[in-house]
Amino acid sequence: MKTILILGLLLFTAGSVASSIIEGEDGYRLWLKYDLVSNKKLQQAYTRQVADFYVSGESGTMQIIRDELNYALRGLLSQAKQVAESEASLVVVSGSKAATIARSHNLDLDAVGNEGYLVQQLVSGDTSQIVVLANSDVGALYGTYRLLRQIQTHQSLDEIAISSKPDIDLRVLNHWDNLDRHVERGYAGESIWDWHKLPEYRYQRYIDYARANASIGINGTVLNNVNADPLILTPHYLEKVKALADLFRPYGIKVFLSVKFSSPQLIGGLATSDPLNEEVKQWWNAKAAEIYQEIPDFGGFLVKANSEGQPGPGDFGRTHAQGANMLAQALKPHGGTVMWRAFVYANEKNEERSKQAYSEFKPLDGQFEENVLVQVKNGPIDFQPREPFSPLFGAMPKTPLMMEFQVTMEYLGFSTHFVYLGPMYEEVLKADTFARGEGSTVAKVVDGSLFDNRISGMAGVANIGTDRNWTGHIILQSNWYVLGRMAWDPQVSAETVANDWVRMTLSNETKVVLTVSDMMMRSHEITVNTMTPLGLHHIMGAGHHFGPAPWVDFLGRADWNSVYYHRADKQGIGFDRSPSGVNAVEQYFSPLREQLADPATTPEKYLLWFHHLPWDYEIASSGRTLWSELVHRYYQGADDVKTLEQQWDALEGHIDPLQFHQVQMAMDIHVKEALWWRNACVLYFQQFSGMPIPDGLPKPEKSLAEYQKMSFPHAPGQG
Amino acid sequence: MKTILILGLLLFTAGSVASSIIEGEDGYRLWLKYDLVSNKKLQQAYTRQVADFYVSGESGTMQIIRDELNYALRGLLSQAKQVAESEASLVVVSGSKAATIARSHNLDLDAVGNEGYLVQQLVSGDTSQIVVLANSDVGALYGTYRLLRQIQTHQSLDEIAISSKPDIDLRVLNHWDNLDRHVERGYAGESIWDWHKLPEYRYQRYIDYARANASIGINGTVLNNVNADPLILTPHYLEKVKALADLFRPYGIKVFLSVKFSSPQLIGGLATSDPLNEEVKQWWNAKAAEIYQEIPDFGGFLVKANSEGQPGPGDFGRTHAQGANMLAQALKPHGGTVMWRAFVYANEKNEERSKQAYSEFKPLDGQFEENVLVQVKNGPIDFQPREPFSPLFGAMPKTPLMMEFQVTMEYLGFSTHFVYLGPMYEEVLKADTFARGEGSTVAKVVDGSLFDNRISGMAGVANIGTDRNWTGHIILQSNWYVLGRMAWDPQVSAETVANDWVRMTLSNETKVVLTVSDMMMRSHEITVNTMTPLGLHHIMGAGHHFGPAPWVDFLGRADWNSVYYHRADKQGIGFDRSPSGVNAVEQYFSPLREQLADPATTPEKYLLWFHHLPWDYEIASSGRTLWSELVHRYYQGADDVKTLEQQWDALEGHIDPLQFHQVQMAMDIHVKEALWWRNACVLYFQQFSGMPIPDGLPKPEKSLAEYQKMSFPHAPGQG
Repeated sequence: MKTILILGLLLFTAGSVASSIIEGEDGYRLWLKYDLVSNKKLQQAYTRQVADFYVSGESGTMQIIRDELNYALRGLLSQAKQVAESEASLVVVSGSKAATIARSHNLDLDAVGNEGYLVQQLVSGDTSQIVVLANSDVGALYGTYRLLRQIQTHQSLDEIAISSKPDIDLRVLNHWDNLDRHVERGYAGESIWDWHKLPEYRYQRYIDYARANASIGINGTVLNNVNADPLILTPHYLEKVKALADLFRPYGIKVFLSVKFSSPQLIGGLATSDPLNEEVKQWWNAKAAEIYQEIPDFGGFLVKANSEGQPGPGDFGRTHAQGANMLAQALKPHGGTVMWRAFVYANEKNEERSKQAYSEFKPLDGQFEENVLVQVKNGPIDFQPREPFSPLFGAMPKTPLMMEFQVTMEYLGFSTHFVYLGPMYEEVLKADTFARGEGSTVAKVVDGSLFDNRISGMAGVANIGTDRNWTGHIILQSNWYVLGRMAWDPQVSAETVANDWVRMTLSNETKVVLTVSDMMMRSHEITVNTMTPLGLHHIMGAGHHFGPAPWVDFLGRADWNSVYYHRADKQGIGFDRSPSGVNAVEQYFSPLREQLADPATTPEKYLLWFHHLPWDYEIASSGRTLWSELVHRYYQGADDVKTLEQQWDALEGHIDPLQFHQVQMAMDIHVKEALWWRNACVLYFQQFSGMPIPDGLPKPEKSLAEYQKMSFPHAPGQG
Repeated sequence: MKTILILGLLLFTAGSVASSIIEGEDGYRLWLKYDLVSNKKLQQAYTRQVADFYVSGESGTMQIIRDELNYALRGLLSQAKQVAESEASLVVVSGSKAATIARSHNLDLDAVGNEGYLVQQLVSGDTSQIVVLANSDVGALYGTYRLLRQIQTHQSLDEIAISSKPDIDLRVLNHWDNLDRHVERGYAGESIWDWHKLPEYRYQRYIDYARANASIGINGTVLNNVNADPLILTPHYLEKVKALADLFRPYGIKVFLSVKFSSPQLIGGLATSDPLNEEVKQWWNAKAAEIYQEIPDFGGFLVKANSEGQPGPGDFGRTHAQGANMLAQALKPHGGTVMWRAFVYANEKNEERSKQAYSEFKPLDGQFEENVLVQVKNGPIDFQPREPFSPLFGAMPKTPLMMEFQVTMEYLGFSTHFVYLGPMYEEVLKADTFARGEGSTVAKVVDGSLFDNRISGMAGVANIGTDRNWTGHIILQSNWYVLGRMAWDPQVSAETVANDWVRMTLSNETKVVLTVSDMMMRSHEITVNTMTPLGLHHIMGAGHHFGPAPWVDFLGRADWNSVYYHRADKQGIGFDRSPSGVNAVEQYFSPLREQLADPATTPEKYLLWFHHLPWDYEIASSGRTLWSELVHRYYQGADDVKTLEQQWDALEGHIDPLQFHQVQMAMDIHVKEALWWRNACVLYFQQFSGMPIPDGLPKPEKSLAEYQKMSFPHAPGQG
């Protein structure tokens, strides 16, 4: 259901923004917006090169390739024609037939593996042909999207010669979607899974979801919340899961489920869920068999266990490895995988929260079954605007560690802030763990190359909902997009991806590409400054995590409170995780460990993460006191958001009016909330520093008490 | 954001259903689907008659008329041109200028009042012109939509001479939408009001909602649930309410709010909410003034008080009139209205539930302030698939009684059943109360003509949500549509409206119009048969109200249980509300009272509503026993749903593929659930009748125990 194409273009030029009826691109089409290539010369070249196409094979996947090419080329070139192979300028082919073509042209098809592809111009004599070759049908689908991206971004197809394969095996979205359609930490409407109407009612949106994922190489989806409802494993729901799995299969997407560890008790009628109990094992074995009977390519289970109140093997005196292995054994005969989360922290543990996952999991290295991945959040706490990488990366050489990034903006402005996460993902992936000396990046841990792991994975907690534009904010579509791109290729630069995304989603016009890419590349750092500069973290509103609330000190667990994390007092601010404090730095390898132990060598962006420093501590980069620098960062952040707004406003008339308008409205909110963060945080911390707001900076409009009184019981996305 | 128009048509003819990408009409445009008039001759005539248009005046409303005509005619005729008044073939004008034109052509513009309009062909000499004339700008907007309907339904404009005005003053949607976007009894996604992003973020959908409502004459919207959250009256939310009111104002739509009666205590810090307390009065006066400061045309309050746990004046020993009047006095200086619901029943009352509203409200007739309407559900219980009209209609001559219809399908299959409510609304409105002798129809009570009330109103509990097609099911859009049409004109026939709706929403092709209108007109009766034939009621699932559950007997209040209502036992079935029983019939006027007191003269559709009858009671129309008739009705209902499905299937290729596909999927569910109702109810009641399922009817697939075991904890729309 792309929205109006031809009419939309007419209106665009007619400048219909002033009308009460704004038509145009509403964002539903995402980056698969196949509008006519405006450059006539390019359009003609593309038409010559690909408009007459042939897709070989009759599988569901090959039929989808045919549909996609027909739909896309009709839009991009205003013509598309399926022709005989001999007449085709573009040929898409997989399997042994592709291998034959590859051999006869000396192309290395083996190198791209099962999911990769070649997109290649073949010249023989006067005639030239573009081929998409792959070993599997899904590889051919990926290659087709790659070819289309080339056209969507107005790149030449002349002498095209692309060889690509994913560096990571499992490229997965995690939906924290409840069975009543509430999305925990969702800010874009409710769950796109309409459980009540499944299995009969299958929205076109399900297909478009699969198309979008396949176009960026995502090959797995966990349908339900990690805080799992055991009912998902009952026949009533499995029938619905099967309907989705059937729809997604030809797009190369496997369905996974989050399971509640105590399911044997809750829906199985057993007295225990002890993973070493024979009855429990049998129950899971039978449940796995029941699932695979209906869904032969079922992906497996994602488990949150013994974390934030969820049941787990610890309830029965067993380790995470024992719990994970029981499930792994149930899935193994069917080829399924367990993704076991390392996000655990417990009140009863007498250890600082950032250290607990490492302490709990590192000793288990080597104990997991081979079809278990341990899924680790990027940072040691919980998806803060910025965190150093989790010290688990590099610390478990015998265990495949799956990266868990958050795509949804739980701590980064929900769906109203302009924040591109590419630079944040890149910062984490390029970080050096030093696990096997310099160059032991997180990316190499995750893609399995550092320790030669048998399997690898990357997950993103989805930001998708029923909002027409999927993510509640056009720009936030880019975070779904970059998650997929970086899961395929953890080395790709955030900037390259931003560039592609802008061209595919907004416009190929240079002014738009340059401006929006620039905004995107700066946006994460800006937002860190507006919320948690200099390594501050976890000072947001309680429960809903909306807005600033560094004053939170009333929650039941110490490590749920803001004051636990910023530790502001008359002396200074920050969490001493150096050897003089809780010594979290010991969990990192040398020389990083030593670097982080000393404020002087700690990167400023992590300064208050690792150190409690006096208010008059001198910040090296600016020469300011810590207090002054903190205040300046908050003010700079808010000013920079204002600049983002101005940059956007200058694009009016260059971007589809409906896209433009949507982002413009969200920018109003971003500007407002950046000021709110600035004012509330500066006033709050001033109580401790006792220092004035530096000269020249405007005073906050309200009093601290007024900010503290603000209440948002209905903020979206609550757990 | 209409979806693809030109491309959509191309694809339609290309038969794209088989593709994985189904394009076309997704239902978002509702009945405002301005596709090209396919009949060339008609198109040419329309183009001559209206394509060159002039709209006089610069108000927001007149600008909207301009936008709508430009948008609509460009779609319908593929041309539209704003020209000078002297050159215009169509002129839209309001106010004194319209009056002047009307006078000079001897047209009675006074007769159409403040909201009505004339659509008239004016001929002078050789030239002819079509004019839309109205006393107000909003009247002109209504007239414009009326003219467009004429074109959308392919009616001639030759010698057009329409004079129309609404018979009912307040034509209002009630949204049972919570501030967290959950919609109580909503089956079409979540609330379209995104409170979190308001006031800055204003979806195009808000405008399209206003357009749809204005096009059918709806002039009020209650934004929030009658089970009201007091926070709606805090400044944080009023700022958001104002944003919506500002958007809706030029469409003639006033915003109302549901208020919690105990707001003075809950958000005002007062010790009481007693309506006779001076501080309480002052609090409400100040609150009203605060609202009108920001929203000068604020509509007023809707109140659910002393009902199902909601607070009310009864908590302070006061009457409903005293409670309503306090609010009315607060609103009166500003021109606001109180809509006070009569849906009250209380556990502590020793009176049968269907009788309580009458008993409580009738004695209060004459005691309400003049800006109070008492809002009465159509039937005496609660929106059952079929109920007799509420005996309050006709019983309170001095009080304007506002009709409350349910548009959302709480008891009629959620959003998966094909049910047009027009015939049900019509049945109620045409029912004769005999309050002032024969012909004292409910319609005449509601429009105020029977008792010459100062004000009149009709409300519909909205079925609108964030689903792309607004109502979760294309066909259910017709219930929103018919609510508006019947609120404007309570005498219009359900069939006329069905016809218009099909033409505007689906197709003008005769086959489609005849088939779908026929399906719609039969659909309500069919669904009554599948669920609650012969006057049965309230036998649905507990809490969520999903599916059959005549066995419910475990709820905390007697009158929440199914067994309370059907009273099946070895002797027979049905609720004796005749004089030999609870004597609810005494609340009706003669001769209805006597008619309903006797099973022989009670219409069969209400038989078991008013009488407990033996299983072998002979049904007059069929000669069958009651048991046999009951079973036959259930079987007939399920069979008829199957027939509906076949009728729909036969339209493939005649309806836009995406619309067709959506309804087809929902029909699968409807067929399945009709069988479920049939089987569960027949098996359950058979326990009491001890009689066999008549020969020739297939046996239910499952056992009663299996049906009773089914559980749906996550069914949508729960309170």
